Amino acid sequence: METKKIELLETYLSLYIDHFKVLESLKNPDDSDIVVLDVRNAPKQVKGDQIKGALPIAAKDLADHLDELDHDKTYVVYDWTGGTTLGKTALLMLLSHEFKAFELAGALEGWKGMKLPLEPAK
Amino acid sequence: METKKIELLETYLSLYIDHFKVLESLKNPDDSDIVVLDVRNAPKQVKGDQIKGALPIAAKDLADHLDELDHDKTYVVYDWTGGTTLGKTALLMLLSHEFKAFELAGALEGWKGMKLPLEPAK
Amino acid sequence: METKKIELLETYLSLYIDHFKVLESLKNPDDSDIVVLDVRNAPKQVKGDQIKGALPIAAKDLADHLDELDHDKTYVVYDWTGGTTLGKTALLMLLSHEFKAFELAGALEGWKGMKLPLEPAK
Repeated sequence: METKKIELLETYLSLYIDHFKVLESLKNPDDSDIVVLDVRNAPKQVKGDQIKGALPIAAKDLADHLDELDHDKTYVVYDWTGGTTLGKTALLMLLSHEFKAFELAGALEGWKGMKLPLEPAK
Repeated sequence: METKKIELLETYLSLYIDHFKVLESLKNPDDSDIVVLDVRNAPKQVKGDQIKGALPIAAKDLADHLDELDHDKTYVVYDWTGGTTLGKTALLMLLSHEFKAFELAGALEGWKGMKLPLEPAK
Repeated sequence: METKKIELLETYLSLYIDHFKVLESLKNPDDSDIVVLDVRNAPKQVKGDQIKGALPIAAKDLADHLDELDHDKTYVVYDWTGGTTLGKTALLMLLSHEFKAFELAGALEGWKGMKLPLEPAK
């Protein structure tokens, strides 16, 4: 059982990227291969704010935008909280189409809790 | 590793049902094969409200109520938030007894966040 | 698919321990083999309070403290909420080093929601 637990944890954790790497990319956005995708299914009035520099593509619309994405980039998706499945739905679509992609650990809730940079939702 | 990640995401996401399908069933509850189970381990005074039409069976009591459930129905369980394990504990019991069952994506927290229909806890 | 779902749920749920067992150990801390580890990466001023009796070892520092841990104990790790990956990161490190370890179901958020014993962060 311990082996199964370790394997599950390793795979599960490999789905995520932490905020340090995203913050690092914000310092030099032109040199970075990280693109943050805000996949919340909500109009910008409801979203209010978003992670600085994020590109808003709602998870429900992502299938229609895959041809605008770049296989040389690494996509980081986030939803409101880590307790939802929307980020994982978007992540599955990106990985299935052979994009490099991760879910942001802690989601927007964690980002805000650490008082990291935001901007008005786009 | 990408294959393992995709397999994990596919299985993980297949545990969940989203609120659209539950909302749809609320429109015609008599024709619907969906039954929403509120599995929170709390008295109704603490719960306060619940998803409209939900049947309250606390996860801790679920084993004693399995013979009242119907194999022709699809059960949708929810707890306070998606960050707990109670919904998954109930889901495992239902699936192990060959019921059709899912966890509500986003749990009660997500349902409330979208201002979907509630009623006083029963 | 149902078999895969059941296997995933069984392994996933086996990562967790519930608050009942932790509470039980608090009654007789000297006789208990449970040690609660607060693995939040935050200074004590930010943490404010913690689970009563918890030992604070930030996840980022855990690798440096493994030789202080006891293979006869059972470690229970927790982060702010169950929607983060920090608890699972710490858990993976502990299991990989052959410690008995679990994540606290519901994390600190669930513990506080149930008004269980806290103390000032150490």
